[in-house]
Amino acid sequence: MTETEDRKSRAAAWFAQLRETICAAFEDLEDANAGPGTPGPAGRFARTPWRRPSEAGAPAGGGGVMSVMRGRVFEKVGVNISTVHGEFSPQFRKEVPGAEDDPRFWASGISLVAHPRSPHVPAVHMNTRYIVTAKSWFGGGADLTPMVPVAEDSAHFHAALKAACDRHHPDYHPRFKKWCDEYFHLKHRDEPRGIGGIFFDNLDTGDWAADFAFTRDVGGAFLDAYVPLVRRRMAETWTEAERAHQLQRRGRYVEFNLLYDRGTRFGLMTGGNVEAILMSLPPAVAWP
Amino acid sequence: MTETEDRKSRAAAWFAQLRETICAAFEDLEDANAGPGTPGPAGRFARTPWRRPSEAGAPAGGGGVMSVMRGRVFEKVGVNISTVHGEFSPQFRKEVPGAEDDPRFWASGISLVAHPRSPHVPAVHMNTRYIVTAKSWFGGGADLTPMVPVAEDSAHFHAALKAACDRHHPDYHPRFKKWCDEYFHLKHRDEPRGIGGIFFDNLDTGDWAADFAFTRDVGGAFLDAYVPLVRRRMAETWTEAERAHQLQRRGRYVEFNLLYDRGTRFGLMTGGNVEAILMSLPPAVAWP
Repeated sequence: MTETEDRKSRAAAWFAQLRETICAAFEDLEDANAGPGTPGPAGRFARTPWRRPSEAGAPAGGGGVMSVMRGRVFEKVGVNISTVHGEFSPQFRKEVPGAEDDPRFWASGISLVAHPRSPHVPAVHMNTRYIVTAKSWFGGGADLTPMVPVAEDSAHFHAALKAACDRHHPDYHPRFKKWCDEYFHLKHRDEPRGIGGIFFDNLDTGDWAADFAFTRDVGGAFLDAYVPLVRRRMAETWTEAERAHQLQRRGRYVEFNLLYDRGTRFGLMTGGNVEAILMSLPPAVAWP
Repeated sequence: MTETEDRKSRAAAWFAQLRETICAAFEDLEDANAGPGTPGPAGRFARTPWRRPSEAGAPAGGGGVMSVMRGRVFEKVGVNISTVHGEFSPQFRKEVPGAEDDPRFWASGISLVAHPRSPHVPAVHMNTRYIVTAKSWFGGGADLTPMVPVAEDSAHFHAALKAACDRHHPDYHPRFKKWCDEYFHLKHRDEPRGIGGIFFDNLDTGDWAADFAFTRDVGGAFLDAYVPLVRRRMAETWTEAERAHQLQRRGRYVEFNLLYDRGTRFGLMTGGNVEAILMSLPPAVAWP
C-alpha cells in the first residue's frame, strides 16, 4: 500500500469510528432524558447507505451512510459519513487546490447536524474531512447554535474546543475561531448563525500525522463540548413562546445552509446525494 | 414630462392599482370562507412601508410597501410593491441588459406569494415588473404550486393565463409556459416546483403600449386563474397526513427560492429589504 493509500484508509476508518462513538453518545442521551415535553421512547439511529452515481464522461464512485435519529431529545439528528472519488467538473477545477491540472479527487469525511426538540438545547454542527487531489488536506470544525445563548454554555463549548486546539498549536484556536465567525455569518441579515466554534480548511502543515491527530482531537472535543450542554438543559421545561422562537431561529439555519454553505451548494450543484446533503435542514421551521 | 418618465409613472401606478385589486379580492376570500379548520376571524392585510437605504458610493433611492395578511384562508400571503432606483454594482452590470455602459437603473413591480392554510388550496406566485436601464422592458408571470395537483384546477389555471396571452400574441403562451417550466425547476431534485404557469422577461417588442397592455392583462388574468380555485377548495376538510405533506412540499418552495430564484438571490446579495424579499417563505415548513 502506498503512503497515500494508507493515509486515505486511516482517515476513512477514523471517520467511521467517530460516527460510532457519536451515535452511541447521542443514544445514551436519549436513554438518559426523563424530562418533560419529550414524548415517546428513546430514539435510535437508522442507517441508510447510498452509492454515488457515475456521471456521464466522468469516473465516479464511492458512497456513504446516513445515520438519522428522530428521538425525544433530538427532534432530528443526522450523522453522515462518506468516502467518494471522481473528477471535478471544469467549473470547479479552478476553485479547488491541486485540481487545476489534475481534476481527480478523493474525499472522506463525517458531517453532523443536530436539531434538539427543546429550545433550551442548542443545535450543533460538526464536520471533519480529508481531501486528496494533487495536494491533500484536512478540514472541519464545530459550531453551536443556541436559540437563546446562555453565557455559561457558550463558555463551556468554546473552552472544550480551545483545549483541543491548544494541545496542537497556540495559534489554532484564535485563527479557527475567527474563521468560524466569518464563515457562519448571514450577510443579508448581518447576523451570526450562532455563537461560533472553530472552522478550519486546507490544513496541511507538512506533518501529516500531526494534522490527522489534530483532526481526530476536534472530533473528540466535539463530544466534550456538546454532550454536557445537552445533559444540563434537556430536562428543563419550555414555553410555547420559546418553541415559536426556536422554529423562527431554525429559519436562519435554513437560510444559511441554502444561501451560503459551500458544502451544501457544492454538493447539490455537483449531483451529490440530495437526502444526505439536506439532512442538515431542521424538521420543523417557521417564517411567521 | 419626458416619454420615459411618463412610462415609469404609468407602470408604477398600475402596480399599485393591481395591489389594491388583489388585496381586496383576497380579503373577500377571507370573508367568504366558512369552512372547517379555519380558526379565527377573517384576515386583513397590514401594510408596512420601507425605504431603500443609500449605499456607500452609489446613489440609491425609492422603496416599497409590504402588505402581509395572516388569515384563516391564507396562512400567510404577502403582496409587495416597490419602485427603486440606483446603480448596479460592477459585478451585476454585465448581467443586466443595457447596464454595461451606464449602470443606472429604475425598477418598479409587484410581487405576490400566497401560502394558504388548507393543503387543498394551491400556493401561488405572481410578479410583474418594469425595468429601465439604457434599455427598458417588462417581465413577470404567475405559477401555481398545488400540494397534490388536481387536473381540473391545473387546467383552469393554465386556461386563464392562456386566454390573456392569446389576446396579445399566439406565440406568447407556448413560449412563456415553457420558460416557466424551465425556470421553476429544482435541478438538484430534478423536480418541478409546481405545475407552472407563465414566465416572461426582457419583453420589449418595440410597441410599449402593447407590452404594457399585456403586462396589465397578466395581472388581471392572475385573479381569474387563482381566485376560483381558492373558492372551490377552501371549505374542504383535510387530514393531518395532508397537512404534513403540505409542510414538506413547502420545503421545496424554500429550497427553490433560496437556491435558485434570481430575484431572491439578487435582492439579498445587493442589500435589498430582507423582510420584503423573504416574505415569500412559508409560515411553517418541515424537512421531516
